[in-house]
Amino acid sequence: MKPVVMAGAGMIPFERRDDDTLIDMLAEAGLRAMDDAGLGDQPVDAVYVGNMASGLFNHQVSVASALVDKLSLYPAAAERIENGPASGGSAIKHGYQAIASGMADVVLVVGGEKMREVIGPRATDVVACMAQPEAEYIYGVSLPALAGMFARLYMKAYGITPEHLAQVAIKNHANGLLNPYAHIRARVTLEGILTHPDSKVGNPIVADPLRLYDCCPVSDGAAAVLLTTPEIAKKLSAKPAITVAGIGQATDTHALHERADPTDLKAVTIAAQKAFEMAGCKPADVDVAELHDAFTILEIAESEHAGFFKKGEGAKALAAGETQIGGKLPINPSGGLKARGHPVGATGVAQAVELVWQLRGEAGERQVKNAQTGFSLNFGGFGNNVVALVLRREK
Amino acid sequence: MKPVVMAGAGMIPFERRDDDTLIDMLAEAGLRAMDDAGLGDQPVDAVYVGNMASGLFNHQVSVASALVDKLSLYPAAAERIENGPASGGSAIKHGYQAIASGMADVVLVVGGEKMREVIGPRATDVVACMAQPEAEYIYGVSLPALAGMFARLYMKAYGITPEHLAQVAIKNHANGLLNPYAHIRARVTLEGILTHPDSKVGNPIVADPLRLYDCCPVSDGAAAVLLTTPEIAKKLSAKPAITVAGIGQATDTHALHERADPTDLKAVTIAAQKAFEMAGCKPADVDVAELHDAFTILEIAESEHAGFFKKGEGAKALAAGETQIGGKLPINPSGGLKARGHPVGATGVAQAVELVWQLRGEAGERQVKNAQTGFSLNFGGFGNNVVALVLRREK
Repeated sequence: MKPVVMAGAGMIPFERRDDDTLIDMLAEAGLRAMDDAGLGDQPVDAVYVGNMASGLFNHQVSVASALVDKLSLYPAAAERIENGPASGGSAIKHGYQAIASGMADVVLVVGGEKMREVIGPRATDVVACMAQPEAEYIYGVSLPALAGMFARLYMKAYGITPEHLAQVAIKNHANGLLNPYAHIRARVTLEGILTHPDSKVGNPIVADPLRLYDCCPVSDGAAAVLLTTPEIAKKLSAKPAITVAGIGQATDTHALHERADPTDLKAVTIAAQKAFEMAGCKPADVDVAELHDAFTILEIAESEHAGFFKKGEGAKALAAGETQIGGKLPINPSGGLKARGHPVGATGVAQAVELVWQLRGEAGERQVKNAQTGFSLNFGGFGNNVVALVLRREK
Repeated sequence: MKPVVMAGAGMIPFERRDDDTLIDMLAEAGLRAMDDAGLGDQPVDAVYVGNMASGLFNHQVSVASALVDKLSLYPAAAERIENGPASGGSAIKHGYQAIASGMADVVLVVGGEKMREVIGPRATDVVACMAQPEAEYIYGVSLPALAGMFARLYMKAYGITPEHLAQVAIKNHANGLLNPYAHIRARVTLEGILTHPDSKVGNPIVADPLRLYDCCPVSDGAAAVLLTTPEIAKKLSAKPAITVAGIGQATDTHALHERADPTDLKAVTIAAQKAFEMAGCKPADVDVAELHDAFTILEIAESEHAGFFKKGEGAKALAAGETQIGGKLPINPSGGLKARGHPVGATGVAQAVELVWQLRGEAGERQVKNAQTGFSLNFGGFGNNVVALVLRREK
């Protein structure tokens, strides 16, 4: 296969962005990635937008065409790529395929979601549209509810405590404090999370055993990467191009209850295995990972299913500080979905942006030393469609 | 580039399908394509769904993952590909890219839309969500309105009369009568269309100068093709595999009024040129074409912009019978969007299905004799994102 690199990466701060339209956000992130790559007058052949629900959130469809127009990139090909919360990872995969197939030389991949146009429970409802309609959605199941049931089973099976969950939030919020793009930039402590004395909101149960501080916020945001061939990247800029070394993807049953063992995230395991196989490396080779901690329990479960720790060992590694910056395998130095935020379609691309920065040594205060191989996991639905990436800085 | 073929094709009748969910429809079309290809136990690596607005029409997202589940195709990769009314053509392109890149050997591409879950003007509103939000949508512009303005300018520029428009409808409804998958199967005559004495509805103006019989119906439907390598296709079945010889795509300004000449469908011209260039042939080599006649004027305008006729000659060729089955270049033997229907995301795939059947000689009463090269044009937005395909039966 033709090698493909990420020549540019950029994002806008994740936050509540009432003054921007979705297209404004996509355009700004896209411009930053093109600028970062030193694109100049090199034409963009295709623009892929990872976005879950522009129709329901923003009453707009065909947003990729709209983005081409906003950026005056005609006649670039354009599509929106939708795979629920893994839309960003999927859009990168399609960018890779466009170049590796020979159909494009330069592809701009932008992930973005403007969720805060709909209010409160309506946002939870839009997200719940990814649940199985006849077996889950109609009974009022939401994503937090699925995560709560999963957490209960997983914690029981592997002896995970609420303190372990809190440690994911503490670590990721500590990392988020170092990330100027993060939505929630607050220092939290174990005592604070468990009792939350400083807040009038407290830390109420969202879906037992998950509490507020176990759930990612609802954010607006966009992130972008510019994919091209190594030859073109070299001409554009002296920055080290980051190779898309491995891509893996797998699906699983739509309804959670149909899985023989609901604690087994099969699609995570298979997607990670495929990505490592394509990259010709193994989990132990990874220097930095961005996992999909939409709920704290997921970071622990994914760290095991992706092959970094044995089942039941993920929480122990976390408690031992192995997944902190400076630890053996830093997970979510960006702050993850928990602190950076989770504008759904943006997340998979934001993970890649963080990895590009880490692998180039541009991550500032949250830099993981000497990171050469990065891994990201973008988790769609409730684990029914997962995309894993291995990125590598070539020596 | 690695050659890619369509080894199977299938669709379900387009109609109002109250008893099926969108996923039911996608699944049935998908099964027909897999069955047609003789897939057996050969695994499917990826499933791409062309769909515009499952969120707004059906309150459901991540429908590609849902389809994998319905068909038990785990762990196949899955994405929804959205490009407005050109979502189907775009999904085929992404299937091509998956195989040509070496990332997949077998890709199931299904296009589908269940539009009739929302009623009357609400359906028009959902479709209008593809218009420019700040310059068009907020002022109440709908797709029929854009088409009406375009028709007025185009008719004036090239001396096209309401009778010419009616002849598109007459031809396509005559073809649709021969297509068991067509939604509207009624014989219409020039007298009938112009005065419509048989109907209580009559033929009222929708968007002057376009009348009811100039507009496609609102339909539910799905269509599918199975893409693979020529080697695998040969193993699966003795049917002639149809080569995806050319794919072209182009974008244009989002707002119609920003085009220097609003009658110039630049994206159609560029997309067709690119598809012919990749296929190494020219418009004169095409034996059968499926064009995107969402409005009658579009069939005429596209037949010129795609290179089959000079500007101003398309209506004359139509009037002379050249675009009928048996004519020099049969256009829309399926009945087109006008008679077959236009379940938005299904259309680009349904065009390809018709071409596969035509090129294999399986089109029954509407067969174009000795068709070897087929062309389709899938028109997104109001011509702001267009996908053209050239399909070929190898000798």
